[in-house]
Amino acid sequence: MASHVLDFLILGNNFSTSEMRAVWSEQNRLEKQVDVEVALAKAEGELGVIPADVADEIVKKADASKLSLQQIADEAAKAKHSLMSTINALQKQVGEAGQFIHYGATTQDIVDTATVLQLKQSFAIVERDTKLIAIELKRLAKQYQYLPMVGRTHGMQALPTTFGFKLAVWLDEFVRHLQRLTEIKQRVLVGNISGAVCTYASIGKLGPLIEARALSSLGLNTPNIGWQAARDRFSEYASVIALISGTLGKIGNEFYNLMRTEINEVEEPFSEGKIGSTTMPHKRNPAALEGLASLTAPLLKSVALIHESMKVEHERDAMSWRAEWIALPEINLYISAQLQTALTILKGLKVNSDRMLENLLMQNGLLLSEKVMFEIGKRLGKQTAHHLVYNCAMHAFEQNRAFKDILLDDPLLNKEFTIAELDSWLEPMNYLGTAPEKVQQVINYAEQSGVLA
Amino acid sequence: MASHVLDFLILGNNFSTSEMRAVWSEQNRLEKQVDVEVALAKAEGELGVIPADVADEIVKKADASKLSLQQIADEAAKAKHSLMSTINALQKQVGEAGQFIHYGATTQDIVDTATVLQLKQSFAIVERDTKLIAIELKRLAKQYQYLPMVGRTHGMQALPTTFGFKLAVWLDEFVRHLQRLTEIKQRVLVGNISGAVCTYASIGKLGPLIEARALSSLGLNTPNIGWQAARDRFSEYASVIALISGTLGKIGNEFYNLMRTEINEVEEPFSEGKIGSTTMPHKRNPAALEGLASLTAPLLKSVALIHESMKVEHERDAMSWRAEWIALPEINLYISAQLQTALTILKGLKVNSDRMLENLLMQNGLLLSEKVMFEIGKRLGKQTAHHLVYNCAMHAFEQNRAFKDILLDDPLLNKEFTIAELDSWLEPMNYLGTAPEKVQQVINYAEQSGVLA
Amino acid sequence: MASHVLDFLILGNNFSTSEMRAVWSEQNRLEKQVDVEVALAKAEGELGVIPADVADEIVKKADASKLSLQQIADEAAKAKHSLMSTINALQKQVGEAGQFIHYGATTQDIVDTATVLQLKQSFAIVERDTKLIAIELKRLAKQYQYLPMVGRTHGMQALPTTFGFKLAVWLDEFVRHLQRLTEIKQRVLVGNISGAVCTYASIGKLGPLIEARALSSLGLNTPNIGWQAARDRFSEYASVIALISGTLGKIGNEFYNLMRTEINEVEEPFSEGKIGSTTMPHKRNPAALEGLASLTAPLLKSVALIHESMKVEHERDAMSWRAEWIALPEINLYISAQLQTALTILKGLKVNSDRMLENLLMQNGLLLSEKVMFEIGKRLGKQTAHHLVYNCAMHAFEQNRAFKDILLDDPLLNKEFTIAELDSWLEPMNYLGTAPEKVQQVINYAEQSGVLA
Amino acid sequence: MASHVLDFLILGNNFSTSEMRAVWSEQNRLEKQVDVEVALAKAEGELGVIPADVADEIVKKADASKLSLQQIADEAAKAKHSLMSTINALQKQVGEAGQFIHYGATTQDIVDTATVLQLKQSFAIVERDTKLIAIELKRLAKQYQYLPMVGRTHGMQALPTTFGFKLAVWLDEFVRHLQRLTEIKQRVLVGNISGAVCTYASIGKLGPLIEARALSSLGLNTPNIGWQAARDRFSEYASVIALISGTLGKIGNEFYNLMRTEINEVEEPFSEGKIGSTTMPHKRNPAALEGLASLTAPLLKSVALIHESMKVEHERDAMSWRAEWIALPEINLYISAQLQTALTILKGLKVNSDRMLENLLMQNGLLLSEKVMFEIGKRLGKQTAHHLVYNCAMHAFEQNRAFKDILLDDPLLNKEFTIAELDSWLEPMNYLGTAPEKVQQVINYAEQSGVLA
Repeated sequence: MASHVLDFLILGNNFSTSEMRAVWSEQNRLEKQVDVEVALAKAEGELGVIPADVADEIVKKADASKLSLQQIADEAAKAKHSLMSTINALQKQVGEAGQFIHYGATTQDIVDTATVLQLKQSFAIVERDTKLIAIELKRLAKQYQYLPMVGRTHGMQALPTTFGFKLAVWLDEFVRHLQRLTEIKQRVLVGNISGAVCTYASIGKLGPLIEARALSSLGLNTPNIGWQAARDRFSEYASVIALISGTLGKIGNEFYNLMRTEINEVEEPFSEGKIGSTTMPHKRNPAALEGLASLTAPLLKSVALIHESMKVEHERDAMSWRAEWIALPEINLYISAQLQTALTILKGLKVNSDRMLENLLMQNGLLLSEKVMFEIGKRLGKQTAHHLVYNCAMHAFEQNRAFKDILLDDPLLNKEFTIAELDSWLEPMNYLGTAPEKVQQVINYAEQSGVLA
Repeated sequence: MASHVLDFLILGNNFSTSEMRAVWSEQNRLEKQVDVEVALAKAEGELGVIPADVADEIVKKADASKLSLQQIADEAAKAKHSLMSTINALQKQVGEAGQFIHYGATTQDIVDTATVLQLKQSFAIVERDTKLIAIELKRLAKQYQYLPMVGRTHGMQALPTTFGFKLAVWLDEFVRHLQRLTEIKQRVLVGNISGAVCTYASIGKLGPLIEARALSSLGLNTPNIGWQAARDRFSEYASVIALISGTLGKIGNEFYNLMRTEINEVEEPFSEGKIGSTTMPHKRNPAALEGLASLTAPLLKSVALIHESMKVEHERDAMSWRAEWIALPEINLYISAQLQTALTILKGLKVNSDRMLENLLMQNGLLLSEKVMFEIGKRLGKQTAHHLVYNCAMHAFEQNRAFKDILLDDPLLNKEFTIAELDSWLEPMNYLGTAPEKVQQVINYAEQSGVLA
Repeated sequence: MASHVLDFLILGNNFSTSEMRAVWSEQNRLEKQVDVEVALAKAEGELGVIPADVADEIVKKADASKLSLQQIADEAAKAKHSLMSTINALQKQVGEAGQFIHYGATTQDIVDTATVLQLKQSFAIVERDTKLIAIELKRLAKQYQYLPMVGRTHGMQALPTTFGFKLAVWLDEFVRHLQRLTEIKQRVLVGNISGAVCTYASIGKLGPLIEARALSSLGLNTPNIGWQAARDRFSEYASVIALISGTLGKIGNEFYNLMRTEINEVEEPFSEGKIGSTTMPHKRNPAALEGLASLTAPLLKSVALIHESMKVEHERDAMSWRAEWIALPEINLYISAQLQTALTILKGLKVNSDRMLENLLMQNGLLLSEKVMFEIGKRLGKQTAHHLVYNCAMHAFEQNRAFKDILLDDPLLNKEFTIAELDSWLEPMNYLGTAPEKVQQVINYAEQSGVLA
Repeated sequence: MASHVLDFLILGNNFSTSEMRAVWSEQNRLEKQVDVEVALAKAEGELGVIPADVADEIVKKADASKLSLQQIADEAAKAKHSLMSTINALQKQVGEAGQFIHYGATTQDIVDTATVLQLKQSFAIVERDTKLIAIELKRLAKQYQYLPMVGRTHGMQALPTTFGFKLAVWLDEFVRHLQRLTEIKQRVLVGNISGAVCTYASIGKLGPLIEARALSSLGLNTPNIGWQAARDRFSEYASVIALISGTLGKIGNEFYNLMRTEINEVEEPFSEGKIGSTTMPHKRNPAALEGLASLTAPLLKSVALIHESMKVEHERDAMSWRAEWIALPEINLYISAQLQTALTILKGLKVNSDRMLENLLMQNGLLLSEKVMFEIGKRLGKQTAHHLVYNCAMHAFEQNRAFKDILLDDPLLNKEFTIAELDSWLEPMNYLGTAPEKVQQVINYAEQSGVLA
């Protein structure tokens, strides 16, 4: 019976995916620890540090799926140690040869390397979904490359843009995220099996060789030097996830705002039977979007925690370690839900292009004040133009009148243009700048970058 | 199979207590939600908003312990709603009368009030353990009121103090924590049942009466106005827990440092069979202390998260809500482990008074340089004294010689005192100031404060 | 030439007020430190620890306003100490008697107590402005007690409410903030002058008396025991400021959203000449609101930092201290800007009641779906009603038709009401529940609470 | 008169360097903004968007050093805008041609690109000092490659290691930091000049060309698409700084602990005249180390803040922007002090090798319990050995006797070895494992990596 919402039956899926929970489950943790013990024994057998037949026996008989977590937990409570009872259970399972399990290793060798094995699984999920989102964004940016909508700054209508442009900004960001993941991958997925203070003293000169062989068989890189006291890799990974989560939270917040009743330009996927409210039948809430937007905050707290955990004392301590045990899974769990939620939303997004057009026109021309100013500026000088057009804009706003009428009524201004000219200036479609071209440039770059392959 | 370490079989008890996990378990959450629905129905029955016999029926038949969380979860996944399927399950359980369950309420009424019921249970646990720690600190402060030890500033030996003094500083802090808990209690434990936007529109003028009656029967206070959009109470509670956790983390860190091999003034309780290391038989690690010290950091992250969740949009949103669902249980869970661990440590603390004395003397008199300066200052003036004594102290340090010898060798200084005087100045026991009296003052205040009763 | 935006000429006032900057200025810090040294000398003179005439001399001649910060800084760079050169400068200023300055005190006595003196000034500003905001909210809540507007949940229109109701929720929150400030005041404004490890060893038995006398003359409370190693008071103060800032940030965000072009229900005060954009003449940006909303995030970071600073090692260390030197001023500076900005906004807020009404009606009746469901429910049973009304609501939304028409077209439903009944149900003014009464209740409570006096 | 400690005369240098404060000073901010305006005008002149002679005039006359920040600030207070008055002052300075300043640009174009110019200066400082620290660590690792000392885990003595090994772990970390800086550099130092919603609408098709030309002349990269709404670059930079600061804080904390009176293995550089305490003449405090250790916490808060600022609404907002204005300078300022402090400490570090040896021997042989266990294990089996050696170790500890004596007294064990063997096992120098070889490996990698060049 879980006490953390991540593991709740009813709410858990709003905070993580079952796929990612499996990676960070206590069972998988145990399995990966057993994998490390077995890989170590195997390497030691091959290099003659332990008898070869003993190593074979360990490889053959060790089976995490048959160990009882409950029994291990009961014994751990007595030993007040987090791994000893696991080793004992494994020894018992393996029999006589079990005595050579964990030979020359320290607890942290096993726990850390197992964690990196879990991280490798996480990394693959994150990379896969980040790529899928980039692909989805590319598809949508192309689809809406020319769809005009209002651009807003400071929450207020500013100038026309296209929906595709908004999406292209995000696509470009996701391409950068993929590049970041690529860059850090080899540096992050590094194991460590080097003994109590990373000097291999218990094994001696063969230590580094055994470590390299064991890690290689586990699909991990080998460090230059033990990192029990150097945890920057986890923080580096967390930092990149922070960036991805930052973009995802922003997207969630953006669509949440665009879905407001009064704006209504997009809607998250709606399925028959979805209930918005237990009491208000009409409610169609942005439930998925709120989920997407809301997970960045807790994820960033976990990132902040893991950043702090870089402060290890001496050759290692358990204080920073415990912070990692909390933060690293949390980061992966939250991002898994954000990635999958974003994918669902992007795939089923309803785009209300009619309403986008309506909103584009709702300010009665004021939206194009910059254009008018520039055109007038060519004739009267920019400063004069700004002053005159600013006054007209303020009047239009205060009196709630059409900007065009105000401009036509202005004796100083109305000599400077024909009505046809003014109409053309006030037409949003004429003022999209290079928005569609930029969308194309971003798409082209994404395709050439290689990260979508 | 849990994915968060809080719910791990092997490690969970290092991060929370089973008692507190039960409070924040999904099962208890469901039970409290059912309690709120039942209390609401009862109040509505009594005030004639729903038929009295229907209310009786609901009271009689609603039974959270017989509902299936798994079934509710499966249905919730379809409705994409966090409470609707619970209500449906409850209606089914109650039968015909079930139709009047949740009458006039909105989801958040139920969920929030249920959360406050859980918080009330948490509050009692925290208050109980905070008090027990204060009592333990009082006992220890009294016991060690006169035990001399080195006071350290900036990690360096500074002046003599007593071990009781150190404990009294913490006792005084805990008395303040208990005062804080007392002050916020009535303000924090407040329910809310007021409808979709807190206006009781669905029920009308009887709304406030029903709310007051239902909350009173649940043992909660009634707010002046609905707080769906005002979450300061949770943040206030979290803030006080932050302070308690801050002190506990400090205590853990302090004992961790005092237990270092090279200092060795205290040791955490050691039990036969406790393993320090899988590879180094001699290790007696400060495992409990590291646990105590390490939980403040993640707890503070959850506090930071809940502080952010005060930013609710409009009449309510689910974004801040989700942050609370993560942070509020976490805060209570982590503090539960810290409180219990601290209690265990304080109850079984080994105090190495011999080593305290050794450490007090290890600097060969330098520790009393202030005393020497003050006495010399009375004769030569303070400024001159500081200058001369500073030089002697630096020489004693650089040459690793006894401070006394250096002082006796100094031609300017050695005329100012007799050897007997100097010996008396360099005696740490003579320089405890009012440490023991202050300990007594703190104990007296604690006893008179009423918070330990 | 400042490098932190708080002290920028151009932007500084967006992040703090000049009044609060004066409190936390380096000059005021120096003045308060001198005040503490003088109060200490005075108390020591009165109790005979230093000669009475020497004390008089110190009181008479010490004058922070005539010390040169630059010179002190230059000397401090050599001594690598944060206070020594201040004492030296003071001694020089006072002359012969100066030798008795700082007698028996340690650096932290002076620096901490001076900080509390600054905090006392800050506290008064915060308390004053918090009260002024509460008074303003009370005025506005009364003014708009009955003004109907849309209540929104999850960013979507939900049910009618009144603007006064929204304001009353905040007023109630501010009354709680004022109660909190009242509760913590005596506990927070406590000085400390007790020597190197808080045992008064350098002064002896008179130590506590001198401390009490000096602190009392400075208008501060005296602690039970020295708190160089117990920093909870600063964190407690910071926590209450976090709550106030949380509410202020929420208000800023709320008005920011209500000011959106598409919602347009309020506008922040606009003054002639205010420029929204360097390029778009029509822009009237929510600049003050963004300022108000944006400062909660950095303030909360400073709160998190000061929470961490509770972890002091041994009798004290400078690591937690440095965190306080950053965080405590920041917290006060940011809140000063938020409080003053909020006051300006509340005093000059433009409320667009016409637009509130328009928005209330824009959903063509859907807003009242709950009411319709409840009325139908009385006839057909609640479950049936929810099902039928849900379907109608979804059709109205999908087909963008008036809810009334859909309901009238429904063969199962349209027998259950007359058109007059339906019109009455769909009238928002009829569905305000007890909103105005609640506003009154909150106002009454605020008035009776005594905190507004 | 500054109110933030970063700009204090007395304390400022403990929190940042004057070099870095100059980069983030208000004056340099203004200069960089003028640089951007000039570069824009120049590019527009070259491409014929504004008259070529006008552009020349702007280039010739614009001179930030002659503008008055105070006057700009006074005007800004009226316009309630952060850039308009700067543009006005610049226009006035330039005369007639000034009308074409800021042509087609929006405020954020100028402010953001100027910020990136400041960041470029910061980046160079950080990269330079990070490299210098790596070089220093390499020198020290080589120097102390073979110097034996105690390795500690959980604050307790664990096994022998060498001082060089500790340094090599950090060196390897710094090599990774340098690799990270190299990887992100081109991605981070990217400007943006694309108009109000990044569509270049005011300029049209020439927009992208003008932007590329202007940015290139400023030494910045050109983005694929405007990033007013995509702030990941700042967060990425901040994340790497977080890692560097994490390592620096760890180093500060490590040396702080090794400098404790009771450990005393290293001492930070001490200069004649340095004062530890105003009252205790003997104090030699780790002031620089506390400074180094203490700055990571506030820096991480600024990193957390800038991570949050990724949440930009729509095409941009000022809320996330304000967070950047606070956080980005803070991050650079704090790291500047950490880097320089670390350099000073590493260059002047006093290493107390005698005391390292003493500490290595202080546990009377217990330190080598692992070695004894392994050797006994070869004869009696590992499990039996662990059991027997564990018991001996616990007795040695409890009875405070030499481990050797206990082992010799043990009837089961003492048959398994000769005294000479035992002596050899208990010799720390024999149990350094591959520590020195690993140091060499790290040094070789650092040299081959190319990042130190």
